Amino acid sequence: MARALSGSPSEPCVATLSNLHPDRLFPADPGVRGIARGLYAQIRDLPIISPHGHTDPAWFAANEAFGNAADLLLTPDHYLFRMLVSQGVSLDDLGVPRADGSRPDGDPREWWRTFAAHYSLFAATPSRMWLDWVFEEVFELRETLSAANADAFYDVIGEKLAQPAFRPRALFERFNIELLATTESPLDDLRHHQAIRDSGWKGRVVTAYRPDPVVDPEFAGFADNVARLGELAGEDTSTWKGYLAAHRARRAFFMAAGATSTDHGHPTCRTADLSAAEAERLFRRVLEPGVAAEDAELFRAQMLTEMAAMSLDDGLVMQIHPGSCRNHSAWVYDRYGRDKGFDIPMRTDYVQALRPLLGRHGMDPRLDIILFTLDESAYSRELAPLAGAYPCLKLGPAWWFHDSPNGMRRFRDLTTETAGFFNTVGFNDDTRAFLSIPARHDVARRVDCAFLAGLVAEHRLPEDEAHSIAKSLAYDLPKQAYKLEATAC
Amino acid sequence: MARALSGSPSEPCVATLSNLHPDRLFPADPGVRGIARGLYAQIRDLPIISPHGHTDPAWFAANEAFGNAADLLLTPDHYLFRMLVSQGVSLDDLGVPRADGSRPDGDPREWWRTFAAHYSLFAATPSRMWLDWVFEEVFELRETLSAANADAFYDVIGEKLAQPAFRPRALFERFNIELLATTESPLDDLRHHQAIRDSGWKGRVVTAYRPDPVVDPEFAGFADNVARLGELAGEDTSTWKGYLAAHRARRAFFMAAGATSTDHGHPTCRTADLSAAEAERLFRRVLEPGVAAEDAELFRAQMLTEMAAMSLDDGLVMQIHPGSCRNHSAWVYDRYGRDKGFDIPMRTDYVQALRPLLGRHGMDPRLDIILFTLDESAYSRELAPLAGAYPCLKLGPAWWFHDSPNGMRRFRDLTTETAGFFNTVGFNDDTRAFLSIPARHDVARRVDCAFLAGLVAEHRLPEDEAHSIAKSLAYDLPKQAYKLEATAC
Amino acid sequence: MARALSGSPSEPCVATLSNLHPDRLFPADPGVRGIARGLYAQIRDLPIISPHGHTDPAWFAANEAFGNAADLLLTPDHYLFRMLVSQGVSLDDLGVPRADGSRPDGDPREWWRTFAAHYSLFAATPSRMWLDWVFEEVFELRETLSAANADAFYDVIGEKLAQPAFRPRALFERFNIELLATTESPLDDLRHHQAIRDSGWKGRVVTAYRPDPVVDPEFAGFADNVARLGELAGEDTSTWKGYLAAHRARRAFFMAAGATSTDHGHPTCRTADLSAAEAERLFRRVLEPGVAAEDAELFRAQMLTEMAAMSLDDGLVMQIHPGSCRNHSAWVYDRYGRDKGFDIPMRTDYVQALRPLLGRHGMDPRLDIILFTLDESAYSRELAPLAGAYPCLKLGPAWWFHDSPNGMRRFRDLTTETAGFFNTVGFNDDTRAFLSIPARHDVARRVDCAFLAGLVAEHRLPEDEAHSIAKSLAYDLPKQAYKLEATAC
Repeated sequence: MARALSGSPSEPCVATLSNLHPDRLFPADPGVRGIARGLYAQIRDLPIISPHGHTDPAWFAANEAFGNAADLLLTPDHYLFRMLVSQGVSLDDLGVPRADGSRPDGDPREWWRTFAAHYSLFAATPSRMWLDWVFEEVFELRETLSAANADAFYDVIGEKLAQPAFRPRALFERFNIELLATTESPLDDLRHHQAIRDSGWKGRVVTAYRPDPVVDPEFAGFADNVARLGELAGEDTSTWKGYLAAHRARRAFFMAAGATSTDHGHPTCRTADLSAAEAERLFRRVLEPGVAAEDAELFRAQMLTEMAAMSLDDGLVMQIHPGSCRNHSAWVYDRYGRDKGFDIPMRTDYVQALRPLLGRHGMDPRLDIILFTLDESAYSRELAPLAGAYPCLKLGPAWWFHDSPNGMRRFRDLTTETAGFFNTVGFNDDTRAFLSIPARHDVARRVDCAFLAGLVAEHRLPEDEAHSIAKSLAYDLPKQAYKLEATAC
Repeated sequence: MARALSGSPSEPCVATLSNLHPDRLFPADPGVRGIARGLYAQIRDLPIISPHGHTDPAWFAANEAFGNAADLLLTPDHYLFRMLVSQGVSLDDLGVPRADGSRPDGDPREWWRTFAAHYSLFAATPSRMWLDWVFEEVFELRETLSAANADAFYDVIGEKLAQPAFRPRALFERFNIELLATTESPLDDLRHHQAIRDSGWKGRVVTAYRPDPVVDPEFAGFADNVARLGELAGEDTSTWKGYLAAHRARRAFFMAAGATSTDHGHPTCRTADLSAAEAERLFRRVLEPGVAAEDAELFRAQMLTEMAAMSLDDGLVMQIHPGSCRNHSAWVYDRYGRDKGFDIPMRTDYVQALRPLLGRHGMDPRLDIILFTLDESAYSRELAPLAGAYPCLKLGPAWWFHDSPNGMRRFRDLTTETAGFFNTVGFNDDTRAFLSIPARHDVARRVDCAFLAGLVAEHRLPEDEAHSIAKSLAYDLPKQAYKLEATAC
Repeated sequence: MARALSGSPSEPCVATLSNLHPDRLFPADPGVRGIARGLYAQIRDLPIISPHGHTDPAWFAANEAFGNAADLLLTPDHYLFRMLVSQGVSLDDLGVPRADGSRPDGDPREWWRTFAAHYSLFAATPSRMWLDWVFEEVFELRETLSAANADAFYDVIGEKLAQPAFRPRALFERFNIELLATTESPLDDLRHHQAIRDSGWKGRVVTAYRPDPVVDPEFAGFADNVARLGELAGEDTSTWKGYLAAHRARRAFFMAAGATSTDHGHPTCRTADLSAAEAERLFRRVLEPGVAAEDAELFRAQMLTEMAAMSLDDGLVMQIHPGSCRNHSAWVYDRYGRDKGFDIPMRTDYVQALRPLLGRHGMDPRLDIILFTLDESAYSRELAPLAGAYPCLKLGPAWWFHDSPNGMRRFRDLTTETAGFFNTVGFNDDTRAFLSIPARHDVARRVDCAFLAGLVAEHRLPEDEAHSIAKSLAYDLPKQAYKLEATAC
């Protein structure tokens, strides 16, 4: 598999060594492939709209050089180290920080070598496709990473990262990103977003309101977080009324920093529609130590409905990301903390779970909710029928483990005939891995074009409509769904 | 997309403007497509057997002209208006009747224009495919419907509908329908079916026994319905014995009107096998006001087993259509009533749910049950294994939201290897939309031929067997499964 | 469909009559098919590793001739008679033994004729593909079985089976089986395995430890089985301590007979992590008559964790096969006993169910667990994410009803992007049908090559890596996952 390092990427003969075939992800049938190529050619260069993700706004505020290959590409990416752990590599040997923030002994170059030696594990996974793109398109490294060339990759990446053209803002511009949304806690002061705006840089980086730390009674430090929320908002969050007012204030603060959406990462999609008095009593209970699991769940449920009510007024689009069993391994959580690859999808109900919220606000034209799932069995059974009826509901793209070529195909296969294309919202990259953003959007565009090409080839969709839909999926729908035109930022 | 209105549909050059490509839904690979064409050519003109549906027998009894395009094609079709509602159009603007039966102010032409202006929402949905067929094959309208030609469509359709050739019986004959089943409540007097028979018209329209209003204690007016059942049957339905006898009498009455099947639309597939004494006590409880949800569910469960027992004697085929959460939006239900696009599929269990009924009657050779699902995850896990073992069970076709090209493919993909083809029953159109019946059967025939062609091309099925199976799926299996040869009607 | 019996299988013209096309199961697209052919050519002749199955070790110990076609191919194969029963054939008419061990009146030739007359039911099922292979490759019968040639098949098969070349060991060698694992109860004395070793025959047949009869309190005769376990192990199994020690002793005894794995066929995948005192109390309760269902379930759950703990010490690989609702029809069970085609898959949870076991032992590098499922909705939602994180977990191949071409495709489609190829373990035939073993492995190899070829054709996987992975799936991974190199047998 080892191939000679290419000299110049512009030489045509070099293309044959690339891991990035121009027809990748297009259907094998020559006729359908031709249609897919035509569709893709029209949209491949559209600007990137990234309305949901987890990049660090500090990068764009400070615009400092990224570090080395391991710190940039490996250590923060739970897709990568979960696979290595599954094959017996320890998190320590990959440089993953401990729960207390300390780094294991060791050298980033060694961590990188360990990763490189296991690169074949990623065959046919999206991580492989994203990384190959980053290596080749960002760093001009056309070989397949392996133990043999680990050091060469490490050195080249390190050298490039030190150059001005590889600083965050330069890459943002090179990637043709029109808008990038991050997610922050209501307790965040958004200073990085402020710094970006103050800097005069024209890159558009906005925030999103992710209130889990202050709406989930089982979140570490919940009561303290609620108190801190009150301080920041100038409200008395020891009362239900003050607590709600504090949310409203922080939402307004986030909107001033460009936010057009909220984001809710609950274990389930359960919602509730309690009376004000019931909700107030519940709020008092969840602030006490030792909250009951059912109370915690009910409070999260009620807060989704409260957040929907606030959206009626301020217009923020709600995103609901339910169904992850977080920190499945207590052993890993105790040693390494959250987000270490041990979040496992669970069966998720939407039909009964959403009924209280939808019963209260579901037909209100001011409400917009984008639903995600980790349970693909819900696509055709629950999500497409719900989104194909309620005016407030739209379907987020294939998420997390399903954000992959086959996962995206299943999403379109299972939702399109009931919900159509226009109850979906285009692509989210949902990533911390900044360098992979163009690769992820490119995969989504290719897969959508391949899906559309199949419809055209089977005479189920006129080719002119397919072109129009391809553009909508890549660009128009995310802007509309996330109300990005209307932002004054 | 706008194309010139075609002059004569028989001109070859016009075909290029059609939305109905002769190869539509066939696989793109030229070799497989050739096989699919060959299979389809042998079955495309077979008569239509429509053993389950919801057309109005009054149409065929009175044989009056249908009204305008909006009243015929739009207002009764919840597939259409649910999609428009999901994109913010109000039901009032589509002319959908209110719960009290009143029509909103407005003009059918305006409703039609609203629909036409949103026609692009249906890209790649089955509704689009069915409607394009109706426009082109029934009304010779070869353009794609749009805001620009909405009035032209409305006028042409209105003019045609006024002609004798577009009356219900003429279309029935033109569509080559050999048999059409409707569904009626036990409280129906079947006068339209009687009128059809009395008229001497040779079209075969039969009924099916759908007892939900008198077996579901949560059905509006249940107690009154049970009393009325007694009057019609000449039995004392205040007693369990009389209630069962009344069912037997009405089933016999329905059989005299050609019925060969019953149909059961329960929320779940739960069955029960209570003692006669328990059942009697339960019956008394469910007749009281304020029935408990668990009692209602248990009564429905028991009634499936009772209906199976009656089928042993009278031979009616049972159809079970479970798993829909009806009227999910109380807002819509309160204003517009039932069947307004807000019925949402739910996760459905079959394995434990059917055990009581199957334990009592499941190996009896006189019993025939056709199972449907809205939960595709049950196809390979529960339904195909059950139907591939119990002699009484067969699988109904892909249903409701899944009655679509990709839905039908998934049905065959997920059931064939365990249950084979001969534990399935061919296609049901299950529709109120009379004009779309041939389009729906044509889609099913094409998709089945495409599936069979794939098996032939992969050398998994000899081509001669594929031809034989294609004919069985299109014609023989529905007649056998619904015992349509044996009917004396 | 009837074709002339071929004279000599070596005549080229005869090949056109075969049911076994050399390209069967390869994708229809000529380009992809070419890639699949190339991949398959490299692996088709690799030895067969069969690490999980249910053949009878007595066959290889005694090496006596098999009987007639019905007794060898029909009567023990629940895949076959379940399909016939589903279409109204009685088990008696197929010669299936009664629960008391008696055979129904009748002649094996008649049973065979009944089967042959219904052979068309199996169109497009794996049974058809396996049997066609057995007929053609083992018995040189190239026609399609039917009523017309049933007697000819019966006679030819009977004559061949009487020849030395068709005895169990000769077929084992002809099939190029490198290793075959059977499964036995802890109460088995493994005398046949001993006899095989004593015979000096070089065929490698090993056992696996299947403790259901002594860990499932709902297993018929559980208390007696536990007592017998104590006798065999020389331990006092009336105590929890003695019971565990007896397991350890029998595991060691099985390892001496070549076992490298245990196998657990629980209704659910639930595990528990009780304290020793709780476990001891539970053990006492489950030995009493009339065990509560919840206690039985909890005991099975705890025993999975206990078995994992034993594996840490002795290194046996755990296989967990959950999710079958056994003996769904009491009618069939009462008359014909277990394994009669009425085991129906159930919805199965893994995420919460496995947490106690994984919390205790999940990160221990000494533990190896291979998970199976009958619930395909768990592939992408639970199983691939779990196996793609925990070092102890790997995914068994598509199982039972899903051990079919489309089932295997779904397995790869739904697991590869999250778990990769190297958290899977190659193929299991899991069969009692010895003659079909090569056919089953051949199907798996073809389907994997087809899947890989699709990835290559879409430029998602370099062809050289695909070759390497094809070999791993066919040969290397099962040997590694089941620790077959390390066995001293």
